[in-house]
Amino acid sequence: MGPLQDIPHVDILAPVTRYARTARVPDQAIRELDEAIARATGDAGEPGPTYIEFPTDVLRTTVTANLIPQDWITAKPARRNIPYDALVADAVAAIRSAKRPLVVSGRGARKAGDAVVRFLDTADALYLDTQESRGLVPSDHKAVVGAVRAAAMSQADLVITLGRKLDYQLGFGSPAVFPDARFLRIADTASELIDNRRGAPEILASVDLTLDALSKALGNNAGQRDAGWLNGLRDKHQERIAKGKTTPAPQFGADGNIHPLAIFDAIRNSVAEDYIAIADGGDLLSFARVGLEAGTYLDAGAFGCLGIGVPFAVAASLAFPDRQVVSVNGDGAFGFNAMEIDTAVRHGAKAVFIVSNNAAWNIERYDQEVNYGGRIVGTTLRHSDYAAMARALGAHGERVENPGDLEGAIQRGLKNAPAVIDVITSQDAVSSDAQKGLGFVPDYQPLIAWDEAERKRRGERS
Amino acid sequence: MGPLQDIPHVDILAPVTRYARTARVPDQAIRELDEAIARATGDAGEPGPTYIEFPTDVLRTTVTANLIPQDWITAKPARRNIPYDALVADAVAAIRSAKRPLVVSGRGARKAGDAVVRFLDTADALYLDTQESRGLVPSDHKAVVGAVRAAAMSQADLVITLGRKLDYQLGFGSPAVFPDARFLRIADTASELIDNRRGAPEILASVDLTLDALSKALGNNAGQRDAGWLNGLRDKHQERIAKGKTTPAPQFGADGNIHPLAIFDAIRNSVAEDYIAIADGGDLLSFARVGLEAGTYLDAGAFGCLGIGVPFAVAASLAFPDRQVVSVNGDGAFGFNAMEIDTAVRHGAKAVFIVSNNAAWNIERYDQEVNYGGRIVGTTLRHSDYAAMARALGAHGERVENPGDLEGAIQRGLKNAPAVIDVITSQDAVSSDAQKGLGFVPDYQPLIAWDEAERKRRGERS
Amino acid sequence: MGPLQDIPHVDILAPVTRYARTARVPDQAIRELDEAIARATGDAGEPGPTYIEFPTDVLRTTVTANLIPQDWITAKPARRNIPYDALVADAVAAIRSAKRPLVVSGRGARKAGDAVVRFLDTADALYLDTQESRGLVPSDHKAVVGAVRAAAMSQADLVITLGRKLDYQLGFGSPAVFPDARFLRIADTASELIDNRRGAPEILASVDLTLDALSKALGNNAGQRDAGWLNGLRDKHQERIAKGKTTPAPQFGADGNIHPLAIFDAIRNSVAEDYIAIADGGDLLSFARVGLEAGTYLDAGAFGCLGIGVPFAVAASLAFPDRQVVSVNGDGAFGFNAMEIDTAVRHGAKAVFIVSNNAAWNIERYDQEVNYGGRIVGTTLRHSDYAAMARALGAHGERVENPGDLEGAIQRGLKNAPAVIDVITSQDAVSSDAQKGLGFVPDYQPLIAWDEAERKRRGERS
Amino acid sequence: MGPLQDIPHVDILAPVTRYARTARVPDQAIRELDEAIARATGDAGEPGPTYIEFPTDVLRTTVTANLIPQDWITAKPARRNIPYDALVADAVAAIRSAKRPLVVSGRGARKAGDAVVRFLDTADALYLDTQESRGLVPSDHKAVVGAVRAAAMSQADLVITLGRKLDYQLGFGSPAVFPDARFLRIADTASELIDNRRGAPEILASVDLTLDALSKALGNNAGQRDAGWLNGLRDKHQERIAKGKTTPAPQFGADGNIHPLAIFDAIRNSVAEDYIAIADGGDLLSFARVGLEAGTYLDAGAFGCLGIGVPFAVAASLAFPDRQVVSVNGDGAFGFNAMEIDTAVRHGAKAVFIVSNNAAWNIERYDQEVNYGGRIVGTTLRHSDYAAMARALGAHGERVENPGDLEGAIQRGLKNAPAVIDVITSQDAVSSDAQKGLGFVPDYQPLIAWDEAERKRRGERS
Repeated sequence: MGPLQDIPHVDILAPVTRYARTARVPDQAIRELDEAIARATGDAGEPGPTYIEFPTDVLRTTVTANLIPQDWITAKPARRNIPYDALVADAVAAIRSAKRPLVVSGRGARKAGDAVVRFLDTADALYLDTQESRGLVPSDHKAVVGAVRAAAMSQADLVITLGRKLDYQLGFGSPAVFPDARFLRIADTASELIDNRRGAPEILASVDLTLDALSKALGNNAGQRDAGWLNGLRDKHQERIAKGKTTPAPQFGADGNIHPLAIFDAIRNSVAEDYIAIADGGDLLSFARVGLEAGTYLDAGAFGCLGIGVPFAVAASLAFPDRQVVSVNGDGAFGFNAMEIDTAVRHGAKAVFIVSNNAAWNIERYDQEVNYGGRIVGTTLRHSDYAAMARALGAHGERVENPGDLEGAIQRGLKNAPAVIDVITSQDAVSSDAQKGLGFVPDYQPLIAWDEAERKRRGERS
Repeated sequence: MGPLQDIPHVDILAPVTRYARTARVPDQAIRELDEAIARATGDAGEPGPTYIEFPTDVLRTTVTANLIPQDWITAKPARRNIPYDALVADAVAAIRSAKRPLVVSGRGARKAGDAVVRFLDTADALYLDTQESRGLVPSDHKAVVGAVRAAAMSQADLVITLGRKLDYQLGFGSPAVFPDARFLRIADTASELIDNRRGAPEILASVDLTLDALSKALGNNAGQRDAGWLNGLRDKHQERIAKGKTTPAPQFGADGNIHPLAIFDAIRNSVAEDYIAIADGGDLLSFARVGLEAGTYLDAGAFGCLGIGVPFAVAASLAFPDRQVVSVNGDGAFGFNAMEIDTAVRHGAKAVFIVSNNAAWNIERYDQEVNYGGRIVGTTLRHSDYAAMARALGAHGERVENPGDLEGAIQRGLKNAPAVIDVITSQDAVSSDAQKGLGFVPDYQPLIAWDEAERKRRGERS
Repeated sequence: MGPLQDIPHVDILAPVTRYARTARVPDQAIRELDEAIARATGDAGEPGPTYIEFPTDVLRTTVTANLIPQDWITAKPARRNIPYDALVADAVAAIRSAKRPLVVSGRGARKAGDAVVRFLDTADALYLDTQESRGLVPSDHKAVVGAVRAAAMSQADLVITLGRKLDYQLGFGSPAVFPDARFLRIADTASELIDNRRGAPEILASVDLTLDALSKALGNNAGQRDAGWLNGLRDKHQERIAKGKTTPAPQFGADGNIHPLAIFDAIRNSVAEDYIAIADGGDLLSFARVGLEAGTYLDAGAFGCLGIGVPFAVAASLAFPDRQVVSVNGDGAFGFNAMEIDTAVRHGAKAVFIVSNNAAWNIERYDQEVNYGGRIVGTTLRHSDYAAMARALGAHGERVENPGDLEGAIQRGLKNAPAVIDVITSQDAVSSDAQKGLGFVPDYQPLIAWDEAERKRRGERS
Repeated sequence: MGPLQDIPHVDILAPVTRYARTARVPDQAIRELDEAIARATGDAGEPGPTYIEFPTDVLRTTVTANLIPQDWITAKPARRNIPYDALVADAVAAIRSAKRPLVVSGRGARKAGDAVVRFLDTADALYLDTQESRGLVPSDHKAVVGAVRAAAMSQADLVITLGRKLDYQLGFGSPAVFPDARFLRIADTASELIDNRRGAPEILASVDLTLDALSKALGNNAGQRDAGWLNGLRDKHQERIAKGKTTPAPQFGADGNIHPLAIFDAIRNSVAEDYIAIADGGDLLSFARVGLEAGTYLDAGAFGCLGIGVPFAVAASLAFPDRQVVSVNGDGAFGFNAMEIDTAVRHGAKAVFIVSNNAAWNIERYDQEVNYGGRIVGTTLRHSDYAAMARALGAHGERVENPGDLEGAIQRGLKNAPAVIDVITSQDAVSSDAQKGLGFVPDYQPLIAWDEAERKRRGERS
């Protein structure tokens, strides 16, 4: 490699950004920036990270104001698109003829929460959120059937996706997963509209405007539902939720250390309702999917970018200084950016960082033990004293070795944030991800649960 | 390079397509094809060529019908998008407050011809087409001021782009070219909406639906126009057109051979009104911009892909067997695909291929003579007998050496198509492109005409 | 796509060149050119095409001579590398201990013909050429066993590669193809040295210098050979060659048209010994592998770049004006660049272009008939009159419809070159490539012949 | 972005590696690994990082041993190449005719130290190392003239590069920097042989073998030197070195905190002669170039990869457990991987990590102050207690606030390693890099010092 200025940054960033470019002409730098922002915020397709770099010579050039048209530096309104009448009519017909409609929301529905609720009420459909739109519909809404997800998908006759790709979490929309379904797809970006299964119809328009147009057009006539199906799934869902609430989380692993799930019970009992939850790690994320509940939730996402637990929490705390922020981190993932606790202190970011300190990259350690002949290499850590480290950097820090001390420690952390709560947890608590094997990618890439159905559909031996 | 199957076709094609992919999983091949077609036709951004390749093993695999969902093989309607009310209101306000509005159409307006005319009538705006939407508005419509293009752009106070990028042909929208203009941008794809200059407002919706919404909202109140400006430019335009029509094209070059412009006069006098015109070449294209008129017109486009003259004509003839097709080709460009005359004969494609046979790559030859010290290398050809070649391949063929014989030859060609009319033309007819120099790219890449204004704006020495 | 100057030519060319770059700084243009030439000729790895583009503004800039160091414009000697002593000793030991040594030459041995012969004589090894080094060793040398290629490879205990990749033509060096062999690899570029099978030793040095060093070091002691093996394969080879020579090529296909193989007999009887042969096409290439013999031979290569038959012949004729050049072309492939006959006439390139005119893309036609249900689409042509076309363009042209007329026509063509000999051939002559299916790529990509062995080795069902 | 398994890792890594590939076929995984290692170690061009990824399904597949040829898993000897006789003769002639020869070594000479010394003695040439081959020739060798680098380069009439690119640190070999020089280039990889200036001759062979061949061929006749030049530069070099040694480093910055240069004096007085030095940071690196001396030295290199200070030191300590390792880090750079102190403790890596804790990204802070109007954003830190953090993680930790305490602290650190010595330094000590401006890239990319000469040569205003 050559010196810093010879590195092809754009080539490196292009595969993980929506748009990557070098701005080389000084008097065009503001225009380039305007475009990079426009693309990041979704003015030219799916929103997402964009990359723009300004060479030092461009940065050092002074451009006279008259070369910069006002339209480059004026704030632009978000795109709003009205659904096409004929497609609304098609969608209404599809909904009216459905017996077992199911709505699935995703990223593109995030700002359409109220319209989604209105539509669910009007259309009398069942509802599933997905990781990227958690908390969009109140969990006690009667349409919510998250605990019977697989049954809902396999039995629906109409699946309405709202700003949601049919990705691996939805079995790529395969008939193996949705054997009886026709699709109605609604999104304001094509990437969430046409992937894997085509909608009849597909509506490329703002999700909220479209749902409200549908609700209005449906009026009092949403068609005849299969009431037995709707109620059966709702009841089953309620039953499972109730059972989950009355079953206490395990407190200890086999080695006597704290069970990671105990952390989430303690959080639930300590936080304000509007708190922001963040989860980071491998095993930890698997546990958090079950145990960590919050209206506002962030994690590493499908990309699996470990290390976000501390910086996301710092950012959330600074963006919402009046809300509690609790970040739960596996110790391996924590190590990536633990040093940003210094940043939290420097900027007064009042987050609580909980470390599930089981002295291991435990999915990998378990994988080596079970699948690779038991040779453990590079996957064990120490029960390092992260609380002491936090204190050294000027934050509050406590170590917890007994489940009974968790709530007190968390509550003191919230009061004295930024704070690190260093919890000695058990390596013997095996997460569902660890059991499946980390990153296992079957031939056709859907997750295990769907894959068995998929293989069956294709007539293969599973 | 390795063998055929190791060539990275996708890498090669990706830079010149909207989407390029290898379909590797047999039972997903139809879905992949559905997506490639969807993207080519604009379902996920600007339409354009897409590339999909199927490895031989995929081609040879038989997939059972039950693995192919119906939605993959159902024809999809074209996207239609309704403009957002608030933006329509903003646009109406912008139009009403304009004194000197100018409409410029492009690719994305191609199917909106009637709506454009209605809007021009309602809004009382001037109009410019561009190469990619030639013939959209009848040339005798009072809004058309193509002959005073530069003045219209430099004086307009509102520029309304319809499915049109602000590319080099529009000076990249620079204030050097549009010193007084605010922009109103309308397109159904972001790539024709936000480049270079941002609109206030920008409307991402179907161009025809948007224009009709604007026409309706404007009603009888389109605002006060600067009548002197409108009429002044219209009069000047008419004057230039009239002058052009009464000035006969030159018949001979200095060397006594036929002047290329004489070809276009002969075409005009020989073809049916709905004929399809195609132009291919370097110099030839420069002459054709002035002399070749047709409601349906194709050329190599901005990409400059020489060699399209014969195959485009074959395709046009087969697509519209009842219309006349005349393809005018520089002899250099003709050589690329002259062999496809065999294809025309084989498939009965009744096109007339006119060759402007000046025995040279004349822009380059001229360039070498004038700019590179007069060493002529590889830019001269022979007056090869393309008519005889056509006859050898089973087509009609005539050579023309006198301008007076052109019309007769073209008419016989139309009757006996496929036909090659091989016209011996003059190397001494220097086109405007040859004078400018082929492919000259100034620092900031606009064409010469705009560039001088641009340099002046930036305070540079020209 | 944008205008010509916005096309990312380097991105398009990069996948098929060794090096692709835009030279943007005028006073560095000569240095860039020097580097592009150096890389093309092998100064920085495997030689091959490189791409360098000069923007028009660079072309138009005049650079003062003092900015161009002499070393950029001085011709450089070809790289010569002496083998390392210790590796020569290792190689000698390997050769001495071999019972059944086999030498395989490739691209990198092209200029080492004499040294190869000396080495074969000294080491008493058998020899196989490959397509890319045809004619390197005289076909009557006693080491040559090309007619028993498969047996030689499967029985050798030492394989010595000379500037040769172990690509699909050599079964990727798999133990399935070479079950008993150790490898000794010699090349002056790493890409022909380490692929697929590692040598013991590997010698990165000039092939001729290395072979001469080995011959010298072996002296009179090349080790003990398995004489039965050597002689057995030599005898079998001779027997097959003799049989081939006494078996006349078929003269007609089932439809009564000329059999393509008849063309090669006629060539053999008409040309001078040092003639240059060129083959282009699909089926045609398959036939030419068997029938076309020449000391200097060119074809489309592994890349399969159809259309090279005419331009390669033009170039060969101009490079060697005193040698006969005969190019044999399938009619499909001929169509790509048939127009360059005009170039041959213009430049006086005295090549003979023979067209095997069977009015079809016959491999594909056959493939459609046999493997895709018999629907023939786009794979038939006409028996177009290519001879007449040649005459129209000023070349000599003859059509041949009877095998007995071939020799006379070829001889007249050689006298009156440039000339096209248009031979009406049979679609019913099925080549071995057509039988295998064009481009069929088994799972692991070796050709059919090896693949069966490969599948057996892996214990798969074939 | 999609899920983890959809990320195009190879695309991301390709721009910064020599080779990047996914190994998809289980029984080829070992061969792929063999190739990746071969390329990393220089078997196919310049050595450097390569990337190979194994999908989980490949990792989980068991391949039978018989499918893995021995040659894939046998260790290979490093490439050794003997120089070509004729080129050695040319080089000898060039050396004999030189009056003022200068040898410059680089990466590719690293293992040729003894041969370089022998050659310098034989050829009576002057010598310059470069960052990548520091310590190759003992600093007291009479050929070493590092303190008069610019004069040596501008006056030499023969420049002999040994495994060294002519990159920005050598003014790209421009005549502006080397106005009188002819080049003789020696390298075992083409990338260090042909860039920017071509050698006469260029020898692609092992550097040590080549130098020894040259020394032998020169014998007692190395030609006539310009003794005045040799001695003049040697004397000037000695004078500057002596002056440097007698001038004590500043102890304090203007704000009363420790001057970073004081750290290097303290190191010099505390370490064993064979200690390993590592430097990381921006400003810090600039200071280290002047003050940090060691026979074995590592830093972030031209790539400028901040954060290497801790992990490089951990690795060096584990690789050389019997040598002292001292890593000096700017506090900004330290933050990237400070957490790896935990790794040092876990693995018993006995390095001493010195932090120059000036509470700032000081080059950027200075840049903002001086060049961007004094708005300081995101470039100040805290005097965080890194010593306490180290103690929290189980390492030895001390803070030093007085220059007089530095030596004691470093010595205690060496005894109790791993250890962090947290030195409160001054923001007012402006490094030469900070003065020049970080990352400033002039038009033609050479560093400032050369650039002025370069601009003068081209007749530009500087």
